Amino acid sequence: MNETQPQRIAIIDLGSNTNRLIIMETQLGFSYRLVDEVREVVRLRQGMSEAGLSDEAVIRGLSTLRLYKDFCEQTNVSQILAVATSAVREAANGPAFLDRIRDEIGISIQLLDGEKEAYYDTLGALNEVPLIEGVVLDIGGGSIQLSDVQKRQFIQGSSVSLGALALTERFITRDPISGKEYRAIEKEISHQLDTVHWLPEKQEKPLVGLGGTIRNLALIEASQQKYPLYTQHGFILKRSSVKRSIQLFRELPLNERRKIPGLSSDRADIILPGAVVVLAVMNRLQIGELQVSVNGLREGVFFELFWSHLDPPIIPSVRKFSVLNLARNYFYEKQHANHVSFLAGRLFEQLAPLHGYGKNEREILYAAALLHDLGRIIGYSSHHKHTQTLLEYNGLPGYTPRETALIALLSRYHRKGHPEISDYKLLLKKKDRTILNRLAAILRLAECLERGRNANITDTITTWDEEQLRITLIANQYPAVEIWQSNRNASPLMKEAFQKEVKIDSFSPPQN
Amino acid sequence: MNETQPQRIAIIDLGSNTNRLIIMETQLGFSYRLVDEVREVVRLRQGMSEAGLSDEAVIRGLSTLRLYKDFCEQTNVSQILAVATSAVREAANGPAFLDRIRDEIGISIQLLDGEKEAYYDTLGALNEVPLIEGVVLDIGGGSIQLSDVQKRQFIQGSSVSLGALALTERFITRDPISGKEYRAIEKEISHQLDTVHWLPEKQEKPLVGLGGTIRNLALIEASQQKYPLYTQHGFILKRSSVKRSIQLFRELPLNERRKIPGLSSDRADIILPGAVVVLAVMNRLQIGELQVSVNGLREGVFFELFWSHLDPPIIPSVRKFSVLNLARNYFYEKQHANHVSFLAGRLFEQLAPLHGYGKNEREILYAAALLHDLGRIIGYSSHHKHTQTLLEYNGLPGYTPRETALIALLSRYHRKGHPEISDYKLLLKKKDRTILNRLAAILRLAECLERGRNANITDTITTWDEEQLRITLIANQYPAVEIWQSNRNASPLMKEAFQKEVKIDSFSPPQN
Repeated sequence: MNETQPQRIAIIDLGSNTNRLIIMETQLGFSYRLVDEVREVVRLRQGMSEAGLSDEAVIRGLSTLRLYKDFCEQTNVSQILAVATSAVREAANGPAFLDRIRDEIGISIQLLDGEKEAYYDTLGALNEVPLIEGVVLDIGGGSIQLSDVQKRQFIQGSSVSLGALALTERFITRDPISGKEYRAIEKEISHQLDTVHWLPEKQEKPLVGLGGTIRNLALIEASQQKYPLYTQHGFILKRSSVKRSIQLFRELPLNERRKIPGLSSDRADIILPGAVVVLAVMNRLQIGELQVSVNGLREGVFFELFWSHLDPPIIPSVRKFSVLNLARNYFYEKQHANHVSFLAGRLFEQLAPLHGYGKNEREILYAAALLHDLGRIIGYSSHHKHTQTLLEYNGLPGYTPRETALIALLSRYHRKGHPEISDYKLLLKKKDRTILNRLAAILRLAECLERGRNANITDTITTWDEEQLRITLIANQYPAVEIWQSNRNASPLMKEAFQKEVKIDSFSPPQN
Repeated sequence: MNETQPQRIAIIDLGSNTNRLIIMETQLGFSYRLVDEVREVVRLRQGMSEAGLSDEAVIRGLSTLRLYKDFCEQTNVSQILAVATSAVREAANGPAFLDRIRDEIGISIQLLDGEKEAYYDTLGALNEVPLIEGVVLDIGGGSIQLSDVQKRQFIQGSSVSLGALALTERFITRDPISGKEYRAIEKEISHQLDTVHWLPEKQEKPLVGLGGTIRNLALIEASQQKYPLYTQHGFILKRSSVKRSIQLFRELPLNERRKIPGLSSDRADIILPGAVVVLAVMNRLQIGELQVSVNGLREGVFFELFWSHLDPPIIPSVRKFSVLNLARNYFYEKQHANHVSFLAGRLFEQLAPLHGYGKNEREILYAAALLHDLGRIIGYSSHHKHTQTLLEYNGLPGYTPRETALIALLSRYHRKGHPEISDYKLLLKKKDRTILNRLAAILRLAECLERGRNANITDTITTWDEEQLRITLIANQYPAVEIWQSNRNASPLMKEAFQKEVKIDSFSPPQN
C-alpha cells in the first residue's frame, strides 16, 4: 500500500466570508499531509437580500471558483470535494448559484444543511481528539454548529445563527462594546441555545471546540503562558481564560485589541461575540474547560473519503494513527523503528514489577520508539533535537500536551544527555521526572540494542535481585556491537532509573 | 543518475587519541549526507615507547576496529575508507599494527605521511571553501598540518608536532599555565614553524582553519556574539578574538575554563596551545582572520572517492554544488524549483538597469530560488520559516555567512510578510536592506508566476517608464491563476522595491 503514488485531493469550503481551498497529498487510508492552501475573501453574504446572494457576490464567487478550478487542474489534483455552508444555504438563489458553478465551471458543490455541517465538523474532530461522549462546538462567521457525540459517533447536530461575524454585525455599534450591547448578545445567545433541544444542561459533558475563534482564544492563552508547543492539538482552554479574554475585549478599543499577543489582527473586530458563545456553552454544560481540535469542517469532508472503508469514517484509535501518519510523512525507517519499538516494549513489560507502569506509559514509549529518529530527515547531527522540534511543531493528535511533551523528551534523550524536564515545566508534573528517566533508559537501551539496524537482538531476558539488573540478549549472532553500545550509552541511565548495577550479557546455548 | 539507490561509505580515521567512524550516504558525484557517526577514545599514543605502540594500545585499537567492522557489516556499508595518522606513523611497530588489522579484521588502513594528511585536509577544505590561493591549517591532537594552496590546487604540505595534546603534555604543568611555560610553548611553535620552509611569511595569504581546536575557538566567539547561524561553515575567526580567548585560557583555571560558553568541556584542558598555534600562524602570514572549514581529513578522504571523476578531486564551484546537494538531500521539487529559478533569473536580468546588481546578487537569488521550498519537508504551514531554519542549521558552503543570511531571508519572505533583516543584524550591512527588498520582490513574483507548478509562464517581458513597471507574461495558456496570485501577493512588494506602479498582463498575439 505504501508503494503506490500519493494523490492530491482538494477540499473547497465556500463560507460566508471566505472561500478556502486546501490540498491534501494522500494515500487513502494510509497517510495524508496538507501540501497547499489558498484563501480568498469573497464576502458572499455582503449585500444579501430576500432575493438571495447579490449579483456582485455571485460574480466574485464564480471568479474565485474558476481560479480554484484552474489551480487544481494545473497542480494535478485528482479529485475536488467542495461544500457550501450558511450563506448559500440561507440564500433563496443558493441552489441556482451552485447550478451555475456546476455548469459553467464544472465543480459540483455539496450544499450542507446545518446538521450535515455539524456532522463534518464532528468527523474532523473525532479523527483528531479521542472524545467518546460529549459535545463538539464549531464557531463560524455566520453560524455555529453543535454536535452530540455518543460512543464516538455523531448522533445529532444543530446549526444556529450565532456566528462571530453575524453577531458583531447585528449587535455591536460601539468600540469598545457598551454594556447594553453586551447584554443583548448574551440574551440572544441564551435564546438561540434554548432552541437546541438536545443540548444537555448541567451534565458535565466534555466539550471539544474548533474554528478560528476558539483557536485564537487558545493562542492568546498560549502566548500568556509561554506554552512550549507550537501546535494547538489537544490544547486545554479553561473557562477562566475565556472569561479573562472577554474582559480584555470589552475593555480595549479595536486598535488596542489588535495588539493582544496571539490574536490575529484581522479577527480582533469580531472575536468578542464568539468568545461569549464559548463561555455560554461552557456554562450550560457546567464544565470548566474545552479541548481544542485543529481539524474541522474541511478535514471532516476529507476524512469521509480517507476513511471510506470505515463506517462511520472515524478512526478507532486516534493515537495509533497519528503516530504512524507522522512517521510516514517523515519517511521513517520502518524496520529500525519497529524493532526499537518491539525491544522497548519487551523491556517495558519485563521490568513492569520494578516500574509498575501501565497502558498509558506503554503508549508514550511506543510513540517515542517509533518516532525517535524522525529528525534525521533534517540532518544526522543533533537529530534527537530535531525530532523534538518536529514533535513540538506537529503535535500528536490523540496524545495530551503532557504526553506529547514526554514523547518529545524521550526522543530528545534517546542518544545521549541526562533527561531533564525543564523545557516543558508548564506541562509536566513532578512524578513525570521519574517516568521520563525510566522510559528514557528503556528507550536508549532498545536503541543501543538495535544500533546495527539489523534486528540482531531477537529478544531480551531480564532478571534482577537487590543489587543487580541483568539483561541477557538473545541474538542471531554474537552481539558485540550491541553490548558495546549498551554498556557505553545506556547502562548509566538504566542504573540511575532502576537503582541497580546493570549487567548486559548474551545468551549462549549450553555446550554438549 | 538520481534514480539509483544511494550507497553507504564508511570513513575511519585512526587518530592519536580518538578513533572516529563516519558514514556517508551518497550517490557518488551527485549528493551525499552524513548519516552516522561513532567515536571511541582509544588513546593509541598512551604508553608509546621506542618500540612503538604499547601492547595495551594495540589491543584497544584492534578491539575498536573489530567493532567498527561488525558495525559496518550490520549496517550495509559498501566500502570502508580507513586512514591512520601521527601516532601510527611515528610508532616503530605502526606498519606491523596495520598488518594485523588487515589480517585479523579485514580492514585495509592507509598510513598517511604528513604531506598526505595535509593533502586530505586540503581536499576537505577546498570542497567547502572557495579558497583559490592561501594556506590550510589543521590542528590535531598529535600534529598540525599546513598546506600550500595555489590556483585551487594542493601544492605541498607539511606536518609538525604541534598538536594541542602533544604541546600540553610536553609543556604545561601548572593550572593555569605559568608565564614561563607559555613562553616555552611560543618558542617551540616558532621554532617548528621555521622548519616549514615553504610557509610564506608576511605575505597576507588567506588562511583556512579546520579541526576541533579551531571550531571551538569559533564557537566561543559565536557564543559571545550571539551569532545567528547554527553552522560554522565560513565563520570568520579574527585574530583579536583568538587573542582574547588565549588571555582567558591563561587567566582561568581548568574548572573555570570548562564553563566558557562554546568550549566543549572535554577540550578545556588542551585548548590553550592550539590557540597559540593559530595566533602564531596568523602572525606569520600577517593576516587578521581565518575562515573556518567544517570539513577536514575525513571528508577529504571521502571526496577523493566522491569526486573521483575530477582530477584533482576538487569541485570547481563550491556554491553551485552545495545548493544542489542541500536541495537533493531534502528531496526538492526539481521542476518547480528550476522554473522559479529560471523566472527569477529572467526578471533579475530584465530589471538590471533598475537595480544594477551583478553576479554575486544573481547567485544569491539563484540559491534562494532553488531552495525556497525546502521547508515543505517539515510541513506546509509556515514552510517559508522552516526553510529559513534549515538554512541556519546547514549553512551553504561557498556562500559567506552574510550571503547565507540573505538567502535564508529571501526564502523566509518568498510567500508573504514584509522583508526585515532584524534576525541577522550582526551579519548584514545597511545596503543589504535594499538588496533584500529587491531580490525578495523578484523571487516572490517568480513564485507567483509558477504558483500552478506547471511551468505555464515561459518567459516575461519587462518594460517601464517613470511611473509604471509593466510585466507581460508569455504563457502556454491564459495565466489567470498566475496574474491573480501575482497581483495579490507580489505586486505590492515589487512596487515598494522598484518605486513604480506595477502592471501585470499577458501577451496576446495580434489578431488577423
